[in-house]
Amino acid sequence: MRDVLPDEVELRDAAAQAIIGVYRSHGFRRIETPALEHLRLLLGSEGGENEKLIFKVMKRGEDLDSALARGAHDLADLGLRFDLTVPLARYYAENHARLPDPLKAIQIGPVWRAERPQKGRYRQFTQCDIDVLGEGGIVVEVELILATCEALAGLGVTGLTVRVNDRRILTCIARHCGFAADRQSGFFIAFDKLDKIGAEGVLGELRDAGHDPAAIARFESLLPVLQKREMSLDSLTRTLAPATDEAPAFEALATLLRVVAAELPGGARADFDPTLVRGMGYYTGTIFEIVSPAFPSSIAGGGRYDRMVGRLLGRDVPACGFSIGFERLIAILGEGGGAPRVAASHAGRRRIAFLVDDDAALPRALPAARALRGAGDVVSLERRRKNTRKQLDELHGHGFSDYATLEAGADAAVVKPLRSEA
Amino acid sequence: MRDVLPDEVELRDAAAQAIIGVYRSHGFRRIETPALEHLRLLLGSEGGENEKLIFKVMKRGEDLDSALARGAHDLADLGLRFDLTVPLARYYAENHARLPDPLKAIQIGPVWRAERPQKGRYRQFTQCDIDVLGEGGIVVEVELILATCEALAGLGVTGLTVRVNDRRILTCIARHCGFAADRQSGFFIAFDKLDKIGAEGVLGELRDAGHDPAAIARFESLLPVLQKREMSLDSLTRTLAPATDEAPAFEALATLLRVVAAELPGGARADFDPTLVRGMGYYTGTIFEIVSPAFPSSIAGGGRYDRMVGRLLGRDVPACGFSIGFERLIAILGEGGGAPRVAASHAGRRRIAFLVDDDAALPRALPAARALRGAGDVVSLERRRKNTRKQLDELHGHGFSDYATLEAGADAAVVKPLRSEA
Repeated sequence: MRDVLPDEVELRDAAAQAIIGVYRSHGFRRIETPALEHLRLLLGSEGGENEKLIFKVMKRGEDLDSALARGAHDLADLGLRFDLTVPLARYYAENHARLPDPLKAIQIGPVWRAERPQKGRYRQFTQCDIDVLGEGGIVVEVELILATCEALAGLGVTGLTVRVNDRRILTCIARHCGFAADRQSGFFIAFDKLDKIGAEGVLGELRDAGHDPAAIARFESLLPVLQKREMSLDSLTRTLAPATDEAPAFEALATLLRVVAAELPGGARADFDPTLVRGMGYYTGTIFEIVSPAFPSSIAGGGRYDRMVGRLLGRDVPACGFSIGFERLIAILGEGGGAPRVAASHAGRRRIAFLVDDDAALPRALPAARALRGAGDVVSLERRRKNTRKQLDELHGHGFSDYATLEAGADAAVVKPLRSEA
Repeated sequence: MRDVLPDEVELRDAAAQAIIGVYRSHGFRRIETPALEHLRLLLGSEGGENEKLIFKVMKRGEDLDSALARGAHDLADLGLRFDLTVPLARYYAENHARLPDPLKAIQIGPVWRAERPQKGRYRQFTQCDIDVLGEGGIVVEVELILATCEALAGLGVTGLTVRVNDRRILTCIARHCGFAADRQSGFFIAFDKLDKIGAEGVLGELRDAGHDPAAIARFESLLPVLQKREMSLDSLTRTLAPATDEAPAFEALATLLRVVAAELPGGARADFDPTLVRGMGYYTGTIFEIVSPAFPSSIAGGGRYDRMVGRLLGRDVPACGFSIGFERLIAILGEGGGAPRVAASHAGRRRIAFLVDDDAALPRALPAARALRGAGDVVSLERRRKNTRKQLDELHGHGFSDYATLEAGADAAVVKPLRSEA
């Protein structure tokens, strides 16, 4: 966890406002859930590895006393959310009667994971998600993809590629190779590591896990086809020969890719990628992520999770979401790519340090400062120090553009640029 | 803790943006601290009753195992912040070399207190603070008061009264009555309850705590003077006859009241209130709060706490802050007082539900929707349902102003107001 200094907060705020502005123009609306959820919700969410990283909050008062009396188990009842998707499903299950149908939600807020601290990874970090609950089909998926690409492109992040796949196509691949139906999630978990450990690593894991050797062999011969650059969905469809109940997923994905390609903002592209798996166990259909040459891992990821709400509500509700890794985005913007574009929204406004000699000067200084503020300037009262030259240097270093003083007898302040003094 | 629905989030966002806009125009800048702090920081902060309400986060992995092996103590190492002031002091102590001097900070974010749930009180709630660290004196205090009143008045909260006192005047009262110097904090805690338990209650508490009966008797005779409406600082100064080292506090407060009175936004007033104590143990000088007839308790409170940073940094740093009770403010705005004014900032923009018949319609619908968005409208794609009339009714109920459809062969959408259909 870390502190955020004023310059970075301003970059973060400007980026968040720009993203939210785009999402709002697509009809999404912000919602908020609490940081703490019941542990039993978080632990039963198919959140994969993240469930092991939950910060657990201790019971309090009598509840804690009686838990301690029963032994060292069961001491915690709440946990800090590790993503924004599991709380959203709970939010929808509890509030759906009062929510628009479909719900088009924007969430931006902190999540917590007790990961081993490492460079660029923090235990509290911000996610920025949009989700549509209550509506299935590619209208939703197309809108999520286009709005997210528009938001990123609007911040000046260039060279976007949307990688798209469908969990049902992965299931078809598993069936085609002959992996047992009840062992497919293990197959997905190994396949998901292809980027990190390579083909040999994945095949080794499958062997170690005791999957059917014949299935592994068929998968090994299919892998070069799957990894082919710009593998077309058409040719994979011919290779896999999907069964009648499998074909609609292939057809829907083909439509989605065609529609998205025509509408993506300049320079962005959408590619079918049959090696895209994504880690969470809860995905049920289309999955996608966005990569940019500016960053080694994906900037955004998401997909369809039509059965998560059902576990809480008792009836399935179609759901699909896209999550921007806000910290990664800020890292890209902070390195210069989009920062100037974001900062430009603050331009044209003077930041004036109004030097006040002493308390007796306040009755005249305050109306003069108010007049400048009324004209659109930022005006900060600063008590004049003995070493005024050094003070002006420091003010300039902290982003002030001008300083103001009040001459004896005058009502209006004299404003001078700081650069020439510093 | 509770979920926030879209309408309320929009009110909260608009209010927060308006407040932050005013604070920025006064030269304050947003900073952020993490939600979790080390427990030992939170527990040693003179946070009063709040320290008992900390949500404690359990240790993890080996740390937890070894704590459990040592018994049931010491199982937690982190805690959720209960206010924004204690984390700010830690932030300043750790980052001051990279921060502007003085630091003029805006913080807005959630805090957590494990209070017994009751109406209108939540275990997670938002505070909105401004603080100036690194500069003493009334220039700072005047700016905090004026900026906060301007922010509240800008939201349409009327009839603001700023109640002002100084901890050093309270110390002078205690000395004047003859309370022992080492028992003054006990005297303050009892005196702070005057609003709730009345004069007899306070005197009873002082007697029960075993304070000097002669001091209690002098305090009893002074109380009617202190409680007099519009008690003037001048007349209290004459009554108390402050010693030479006590006089500057009285003089500074007189200047502050005079300067503030001349600059407050229309309808607001500043009153000296010698019965204002405020709960926290960490205040050292001027203290203030803002009340409005629209709300039974104070909307904002704060004061000077010149010794908090010193406990962490080893040298004292002057510090003063003002905290808006954001949940109370939203309650006032939500009841109608300021809500229309806040909502007005969203006005003039159509919210259009763009009805899409099926996936095949997307390639024509998307450019038409994009064109409307480019012209400033909010456009949400919605799949047309069989019962379109019912769907339009519902869309109208959820705040859509218009709906759009695409006629066969046309490129541009036909937009119709929803009201007439619904």
